[in-house]
Amino acid sequence: MKTLFITGITGSIGTQALDVLNTLNDSINLIGGSVNSNWRKLKIIIEKYGLKYAALAKPSNEVPNFYKGCKIFKGDNSTENAIEKANADISLIATSGAAGLAHTIQASKYSKRIALANKESLVLGGDLILNLFKKNGNELIPVDSEHSAIFQLVLGENSIDEIYLTASGGSLRDKQPFELKNITKEQVLNHPTWSMGKRITVDSASMVNKILEVIEAYYLFNTNKIKIFINRNSHIHSMVKFKDGVIKMHFGKPNMKVPIAYAFTYPDRLYEYEIPDIINTEINFEEPDIQKYPVLKNLDRILGNHSLHIALNASDEVAVDYFLKGNIKYLDINKTINYVINEIEKKQINIKNFQDIFNLDNECRKIAEEFIKEEL
Amino acid sequence: MKTLFITGITGSIGTQALDVLNTLNDSINLIGGSVNSNWRKLKIIIEKYGLKYAALAKPSNEVPNFYKGCKIFKGDNSTENAIEKANADISLIATSGAAGLAHTIQASKYSKRIALANKESLVLGGDLILNLFKKNGNELIPVDSEHSAIFQLVLGENSIDEIYLTASGGSLRDKQPFELKNITKEQVLNHPTWSMGKRITVDSASMVNKILEVIEAYYLFNTNKIKIFINRNSHIHSMVKFKDGVIKMHFGKPNMKVPIAYAFTYPDRLYEYEIPDIINTEINFEEPDIQKYPVLKNLDRILGNHSLHIALNASDEVAVDYFLKGNIKYLDINKTINYVINEIEKKQINIKNFQDIFNLDNECRKIAEEFIKEEL
Repeated sequence: MKTLFITGITGSIGTQALDVLNTLNDSINLIGGSVNSNWRKLKIIIEKYGLKYAALAKPSNEVPNFYKGCKIFKGDNSTENAIEKANADISLIATSGAAGLAHTIQASKYSKRIALANKESLVLGGDLILNLFKKNGNELIPVDSEHSAIFQLVLGENSIDEIYLTASGGSLRDKQPFELKNITKEQVLNHPTWSMGKRITVDSASMVNKILEVIEAYYLFNTNKIKIFINRNSHIHSMVKFKDGVIKMHFGKPNMKVPIAYAFTYPDRLYEYEIPDIINTEINFEEPDIQKYPVLKNLDRILGNHSLHIALNASDEVAVDYFLKGNIKYLDINKTINYVINEIEKKQINIKNFQDIFNLDNECRKIAEEFIKEEL
Repeated sequence: MKTLFITGITGSIGTQALDVLNTLNDSINLIGGSVNSNWRKLKIIIEKYGLKYAALAKPSNEVPNFYKGCKIFKGDNSTENAIEKANADISLIATSGAAGLAHTIQASKYSKRIALANKESLVLGGDLILNLFKKNGNELIPVDSEHSAIFQLVLGENSIDEIYLTASGGSLRDKQPFELKNITKEQVLNHPTWSMGKRITVDSASMVNKILEVIEAYYLFNTNKIKIFINRNSHIHSMVKFKDGVIKMHFGKPNMKVPIAYAFTYPDRLYEYEIPDIINTEINFEEPDIQKYPVLKNLDRILGNHSLHIALNASDEVAVDYFLKGNIKYLDINKTINYVINEIEKKQINIKNFQDIFNLDNECRKIAEEFIKEEL
C-alpha cells in the first residue's frame, strides 16, 4: 500500500481525490493533507481518513496542535513541515496559485511520485523544477485532464512529432469578436463543460488557461510543437501526432477523477468510471479564432521564454482579479497581459534560481497593478 | 542496421514493404525474400535490393541456382530453407493463406522479431504459435492495420478492458439485408476504402475478415472482450477501452505502409507519412447490423474455440473461391460456413500440435466442398 499526502485537500481537486480514494480499496493510504484556512473541512477529513499529519497555513485560534491522533502544523511553512514528516510515497500537489510551487519543491525531497495538479509549479518553476525532479529521482505524473491524456498517449513512444491540446473554447466560444468588448462577468462565468473555480473559468474563456497548459506541456513533453484545437464537448482530452501520420486520441467523459486516479495508480488503472458512448458522441475539432482569443497572438512569442511564462501568469491573475471585482472590462485583461509581457521582454531577464522566480512574479504583479490603476 | 527477410515479397504487403524500405535510409537491410512462382518480379527485387537468399515454391525451368550473388532455393520447403540461411533479425511474414503458418514457424527459430501480416498464422496456429514465440523469445509485431493500431495503443498499459476493432463495413454496407440474396461478384468486389486482394474484399463485405481479425486480436492481446464498430472512412484504425472509461483511438489516413514500417522500426517511427486533417475528416461509428453480416451471429460461439477458428477460415476460403468462380451465390458462403462449423463443433476436436491443425484444415475444406457440391 502506498502512502499519500494531498496539498489543497479541501479544494476542488482535493475533494475529488478524496472521492477517488473511497473507491480504490486500500491500495492508497492517505496520511496527510494541507489547507489554507478551512479547519472545519480539514477536521472532517482527519476524522474520516485518519490523517497523521495536517497543515493549516492560516489557522484560527481554535485549531489544536493535535486532533484525533493527527499532528497539526500551523502558519508559515506548515505545509512544508507536514510534507516532511509525512514522507509519503505520493504527493498530490493540488494547491492553487503560486504557493503550489513551494509545495512541489518540498514534495520533491520526500515523495518519489509527484502527482501534479498545480499549474504554477511548471509555469513558474520551468526547467528549475524539472532539474529538481531529475536530481531527486521523482516520477512526475500530471493530473490535469489534457496532460494526463498526453502522458497516457506517449507511453512506449520514443519521439512525438506534435501535441494537439484540446480546449472547450470556453464560455465565449459562440460570441463574435466584436461582442467581447462589452462582455459581462456573468457571461464569462457560464462555462459550457467544466465546473471550475472563477479564475480558471475566465482563463478558459480567454484561452489564457490553454496557453498555461501549452507551457506545462512544453516542459512535460519536451517539445514546442503544440497546437490548440477546440473540441466542444470536451470528450477528446488531447491528441499526439507522430511523424508517420498516426494521431493518438484520448477519448472519455470529462471527469477530473479519472486523471487523478490515474496519477495515483499508474501504471495500473484501478478506478472504474462510466464508458462513453462512441456511437452517439460527436467528435469534431475547430481551430480557435485568434480574433476571439487575442491572447493566442502571443503564444509563439511566450512559449519557451521562462520570464514571459511568469509574466503571463502573474499579469493574468492580477487582471482577472480586477475583472471579477468589476473594476476592469473583459478585454482589459488582455491589454494588461500585453503590457506586462512587453515590459518584461524588454528587460531580458535570466531566471537562475527559485528566488528569481518569486522576485519576477512580484515585479510582474506590481507592473500589472500600476498599469490597471493608471492606464485603464 | 537490422537484416530483414520477407515472405510473399511480390504480393501486396511485400510490394508495399519494399516501398517503405526505399525511405528508411539504410536502417533496415533486406537480405532475403520468397515468392510462390513469380520469377520475373523476384529477379528485379534481387537486382534492386541485392538479396543474398531467395526462394520460389513453384519455380519454372529457367530459374537458376544463383542469380547476381543470390542463392535461389526452389520447390518444397524452399522458403523455410531460405529463412534458415538468411537468419535475419526481422522476418516479415506476408505469405498469403495457410502456407504462412509454416513460414511463421520457421521464422520463429531464426528471427528475433516476427512482423506478422499473415492472418492464418494466428487463426490456425493459435496458442501453439504463441507458445512457440514464447519458447523462442520472439517479439511479435502485428502488421495488419487494426492490430498494429491496438499494439500501439496498449504500449505501457498493464491491462485493457475491451478492444473496439473498426471495420469499413465493406462493399455492401449500404445494401439492405434483403438485397444480399442477389448480390453479384462485381458488387462485392467494389470496396469503398481499401484496394485489396479478391478473397479479402469478399471477406470484408461479409465481415468474415473482421471475425478473423477478432480471433487474431484474441491471441495477440489476450482478451475475448472485443467489439466491432464500423468506421466508414477507415481513419480510426481501432480503439482500446480501459476500465476507467478512457478510450484510446488510433487515427490516420488508411495506408498499409505505416503499420509495415512501424513493425520494422518499433519502438521508433522512422517512416514519414501524410498528416491527416482532423478538422475536415469525419469521425463516427456505427454498430454493424447483424442481418447484413449474418456471419457475426457465430462470433461468440467461435471466439476462443481453436477448432472453430480453423473451421471458419477453411470453409470461408473454399466458399469464397466457389463464389468468385460464379458457382455459388453470395449468401451461400455463409451457409457453407455455418454447415462446416456445426459439423466440427459436434466433433469436439482438441488441437494438440501443428499436424492436428493441418489435418483439421484439410478436413474442413473437404466438408465444405462436399456441402457445396451436394447441397447448393
